[in-house]
Amino acid sequence: MDYEGRQTKFQSVLVRNRLDGLLVTHPPNIRYLCGFTGSAGALLVTARKTLLFTDGRYKEQARAEVTACCVLVGRKSPLIAAGQWLKANRRKLGFELLGIEGQHLTVAERSQLSNVLRSDVGLRETPVLLEQARMVKEEEEISRLRAAVDLGSSLFEVALKAIRPGAKEAEVAAEIEYAARRAGAEGMSFETIIASGARSALPHGRASTAEIPVNGFVVCDFGIILAGYCSDMTRTVHVGKPSDDARKMYEAVREAQQAAVDRVRPGARVSQVDRAARQVLGSRGLGRYFTHSTGHGVGLEIHEAPRIAAGQAEPLRAGMVVTIEPGVYIPHVGGVRIEDMVVVREGGCEVLTPTSKELIVI
Amino acid sequence: MDYEGRQTKFQSVLVRNRLDGLLVTHPPNIRYLCGFTGSAGALLVTARKTLLFTDGRYKEQARAEVTACCVLVGRKSPLIAAGQWLKANRRKLGFELLGIEGQHLTVAERSQLSNVLRSDVGLRETPVLLEQARMVKEEEEISRLRAAVDLGSSLFEVALKAIRPGAKEAEVAAEIEYAARRAGAEGMSFETIIASGARSALPHGRASTAEIPVNGFVVCDFGIILAGYCSDMTRTVHVGKPSDDARKMYEAVREAQQAAVDRVRPGARVSQVDRAARQVLGSRGLGRYFTHSTGHGVGLEIHEAPRIAAGQAEPLRAGMVVTIEPGVYIPHVGGVRIEDMVVVREGGCEVLTPTSKELIVI
Repeated sequence: MDYEGRQTKFQSVLVRNRLDGLLVTHPPNIRYLCGFTGSAGALLVTARKTLLFTDGRYKEQARAEVTACCVLVGRKSPLIAAGQWLKANRRKLGFELLGIEGQHLTVAERSQLSNVLRSDVGLRETPVLLEQARMVKEEEEISRLRAAVDLGSSLFEVALKAIRPGAKEAEVAAEIEYAARRAGAEGMSFETIIASGARSALPHGRASTAEIPVNGFVVCDFGIILAGYCSDMTRTVHVGKPSDDARKMYEAVREAQQAAVDRVRPGARVSQVDRAARQVLGSRGLGRYFTHSTGHGVGLEIHEAPRIAAGQAEPLRAGMVVTIEPGVYIPHVGGVRIEDMVVVREGGCEVLTPTSKELIVI
Repeated sequence: MDYEGRQTKFQSVLVRNRLDGLLVTHPPNIRYLCGFTGSAGALLVTARKTLLFTDGRYKEQARAEVTACCVLVGRKSPLIAAGQWLKANRRKLGFELLGIEGQHLTVAERSQLSNVLRSDVGLRETPVLLEQARMVKEEEEISRLRAAVDLGSSLFEVALKAIRPGAKEAEVAAEIEYAARRAGAEGMSFETIIASGARSALPHGRASTAEIPVNGFVVCDFGIILAGYCSDMTRTVHVGKPSDDARKMYEAVREAQQAAVDRVRPGARVSQVDRAARQVLGSRGLGRYFTHSTGHGVGLEIHEAPRIAAGQAEPLRAGMVVTIEPGVYIPHVGGVRIEDMVVVREGGCEVLTPTSKELIVI
């Protein structure tokens, strides 16, 4: 990854925002800018230089991972160390106003930092500058996301073998997660959802000890982390013969998902993509059962900007990677969700998830 | 769990701290006070009543889990909903000063809340009041922790079968995590550490794709979550015949761990427990290789108060559940860590972890 290029680019963002620097404390943002993957770090980006502060536990790791900026290893918390360095060097740098990541820094951390800096350096809560920068992925990031999606989708085959009436949802999750680890995944990108029967109507029905019933939907929503990047996919299968209503419900979600995918292109507003899915479900009388947004960005984190939802004006741009995942959830009956990851490309999009969306009956 | 009792007890803490109420936003603290396990919630505790705010996704779950207080389901973020409710009811309640969890609330969330409340209700960053309350466990919590520890320790047998020269660290982790899921664990309480050979000198050496060498230590540090409560244990085994130095290193850590366990009793300061381990290692010339603290509390979270470390004055109290986990890490050579979970009991402590601490050679 071109960390130096990212830092240079980001320095011009700072100038445009009239900040002398930004103290980056959110680990995925630190990783994005310099490659450091440790949990204890603070990255100070100023107009001229970038410095990573970490503690003794990460000394060797930081020196191995970080080549694009200075690494300062201290005994104090990285936040305090960064504040003290800044206080000591503020005159030399002509430093007056420091941006902080208000979405991530806690109130207590802000107080600590403020106690160090006193009135010498002002603090300003910034909008999500790095999250904005991270929305559009570089080709190298897209390659990593593709590799994660490919590994992730291979696990759906494992799920299909494990799903049968009487099997526990958690057992299906166990098979998926075991295969993920064996295949080299660093971990799961979120808690595996295996929601069967009436539980499939819970959008966040993480795998429980419930047994898969003899007839009903099974929503399988899972993702892995590979080389730092997340995958995310959902497929819904049916155990036993589906009723006509169940088939209609499945096909409605499938059409809604396709309609949203078809709407993805540079310049389209995320609200338009969301509306495309909602219109299909509305026309089938299922609109009120689609209770969440249509998708979200994915990258170093499982949930990134943009949110694909009503009321969001963000225009899509080439290189964004997002999920498209409409669903229908009828309380006490069941639910269906279908989710792909797609890359916004000139003139449309590329669907990364290779898995078929035909209804599979087990 | 006696949620009503906890709420009543906590209300008197509020009074002692001269607060009209506390807005609880840290999910484990919300769970502790009312049983709600969803990710979107804000719990408003006032001197007279407790209210849980959540959103539509958690409507059914909240009504099933929460019986000891009112549940208000809204369309807005729970934080904003709680702020608006408070603003509307402040006169009736005579409400002037609201505590916030400064260690958990972000700067941006504080701003949002402040924008809702304006000058009508003051905000005060509170110390970690609930974390203090959670330090001493009830017998029902200790039972759950014991069940988690028992399940967790059974996984060490699985690890022993998987550890052999040439196996990848991640494969050993995969076997442990698979068995955990199959045995009913809700998840792992942290990223499984399998650190072999020279990597065993990394205190946080999460399982990698490295192969276990023919001779060296393998540090296995893992835990599971069961009924919400975490387990945490470490055992270090040796692959191939250990050298005399390796044996001495292992025995030194084992003695240090026992010395610290022996020091645990109500009234002992956590720094004394830490010192007990450090003295043993110092007397063997290994003091400088023990680079982390001796332990931490465990409960709904894997890392809770108190920290068992130098400079910490907290006295141990009956009912606290803590880890005791000294280690020695010689860079580029290898490391050893041994960790049990113990309950502070009248006159001493009870070791929950049933696993032998004899050196196992594979």
